[in-house]
Amino acid sequence: MKLVFIQTGGTIDKDYPNKTKGWAFEFGEPATNRILENLNPSFEFEVITACQKDSLEITDKDRQHLVELINSQNTNKFIITHGTDTMIETAIYLGSCMKDKLIIITGAMRPERFSNSDAAINLGCSIAAANLLEKGVFVTMNGIVKEHTAIGRNIETGKFY
Amino acid sequence: MKLVFIQTGGTIDKDYPNKTKGWAFEFGEPATNRILENLNPSFEFEVITACQKDSLEITDKDRQHLVELINSQNTNKFIITHGTDTMIETAIYLGSCMKDKLIIITGAMRPERFSNSDAAINLGCSIAAANLLEKGVFVTMNGIVKEHTAIGRNIETGKFY
Amino acid sequence: MKLVFIQTGGTIDKDYPNKTKGWAFEFGEPATNRILENLNPSFEFEVITACQKDSLEITDKDRQHLVELINSQNTNKFIITHGTDTMIETAIYLGSCMKDKLIIITGAMRPERFSNSDAAINLGCSIAAANLLEKGVFVTMNGIVKEHTAIGRNIETGKFY
Amino acid sequence: MKLVFIQTGGTIDKDYPNKTKGWAFEFGEPATNRILENLNPSFEFEVITACQKDSLEITDKDRQHLVELINSQNTNKFIITHGTDTMIETAIYLGSCMKDKLIIITGAMRPERFSNSDAAINLGCSIAAANLLEKGVFVTMNGIVKEHTAIGRNIETGKFY
Repeated sequence: MKLVFIQTGGTIDKDYPNKTKGWAFEFGEPATNRILENLNPSFEFEVITACQKDSLEITDKDRQHLVELINSQNTNKFIITHGTDTMIETAIYLGSCMKDKLIIITGAMRPERFSNSDAAINLGCSIAAANLLEKGVFVTMNGIVKEHTAIGRNIETGKFY
Repeated sequence: MKLVFIQTGGTIDKDYPNKTKGWAFEFGEPATNRILENLNPSFEFEVITACQKDSLEITDKDRQHLVELINSQNTNKFIITHGTDTMIETAIYLGSCMKDKLIIITGAMRPERFSNSDAAINLGCSIAAANLLEKGVFVTMNGIVKEHTAIGRNIETGKFY
Repeated sequence: MKLVFIQTGGTIDKDYPNKTKGWAFEFGEPATNRILENLNPSFEFEVITACQKDSLEITDKDRQHLVELINSQNTNKFIITHGTDTMIETAIYLGSCMKDKLIIITGAMRPERFSNSDAAINLGCSIAAANLLEKGVFVTMNGIVKEHTAIGRNIETGKFY
Repeated sequence: MKLVFIQTGGTIDKDYPNKTKGWAFEFGEPATNRILENLNPSFEFEVITACQKDSLEITDKDRQHLVELINSQNTNKFIITHGTDTMIETAIYLGSCMKDKLIIITGAMRPERFSNSDAAINLGCSIAAANLLEKGVFVTMNGIVKEHTAIGRNIETGKFY
């Protein structure tokens, strides 16, 4: 199995570089790198960056770029880390045009840099899903794995179901 | 989906209570509790304890006790946290007698208390596997999901394949 | 020894509550509480909140409120956690009017919630300074302890000297 | 200010390397390195290793070796990380023969690798003590700074006072 992890930004990758002047919250290198270092994976993988954006700023142009990036890769299984606010929109967009690849989308409610983050658990979920599924577009958040047509989110609590 | 998590001990649950006199390394409450708190799961679950042992001390009597504990539960999907040294032996034991349940076995190379632990990723893998599989006995370590008949381990590196 | 810890906000206390819609970064309960729980202190203490603000928003009115809060306490030794951007201004303000108390000001370059935070080290520095000093207003950042009249900061790197 | 940090082993440095067969708990590189990386110190420093032992195994020969190591350094301020069980014995030994140097001894109740460790706070305490003191042998644990002749420990709770 070979997995390609694609960074798009989102809470999971929010970091806090050493700078002055207020809320210096920025996107850093993919949190996926740090999580995979702890995992020591028994599968082949690559980590690439599509963009580094808050998901409220992700446009259909970014999504089209994702489609092209995925199609340019010489493999079939992808895990995309993504902000939670428009994760479902991106899943639906990709689901409408990517029929032959497996794409798992995940992210985090709290940055991976946080000691109480859900990033490592969510990425673990997406990795097991990539082991067991063959094609389609899925979301893994809050410990569930659902197709892009079935996943929902409670706007009040932020919880996916 | 309802998942029952069963603690048996192992590295994942090793803790370091506030005491004097040397290597006061002991098993604490299930690390699963802390991981699930960060996850905020969208599935029903329960966490129970079968035993708190280093896996080198797990005997077939303990494994028989596990079988009985599993059979006594009113559900079909189980995740067992277990020490890595005899994880495969326990998987084979359960695989030989549990035909109608889904059992995922996982653990960690470094205690969940460690900031560089693999516990959360591995538990995430096992949770997604429990979403997607229906029955059988599986191991999830190092980012792979394999049946008890297919999983192996490199004795030199400790890595599962 | 009795120490009173006073929260004013700043990076050290930035938390990331479970919500939707973008950069939901907010001030939470004092990080001091979590750090002191790990320390298990052999001294008496109390943790109180003056305000929860980014330090760029701290005004002289807030500083005057701090003076009154400190004067209202029945003790002589205080540790203030504060944002780094105006930490020195607050130190100078307090230094000009608090002559008989000991006040140590500290904070963090990365939120205490981050696994690579400097919060615990900095609070440790301020606690030892409170053990060893009797009066005056001091800043402890980057491993140094300096009076409000002696502390400086490199605006480019954010480092105190 | 130049500080020399000396590793002797103890709980603070206990790590858990990736290996098979039971309780593979070993001493790793000085935890001091990881803590100082987070601190980004505004003072000169060096980190050296005297030994890597559980403090119950530290002998007077090791302590004599420490004296020689300290005397061989071209500086006056030292922070020794040490196991807690015989920390006071080592402090008394050094206190009896090191009259002109400043030596601060600290350690941790839980390994620095633990996410709930007290290591960073304790090292922070010792760094501030090194800023403010000139000579003598001191212990910093549980948020207090005391001379080797004044420090005590509650054997039941493990707490220093």
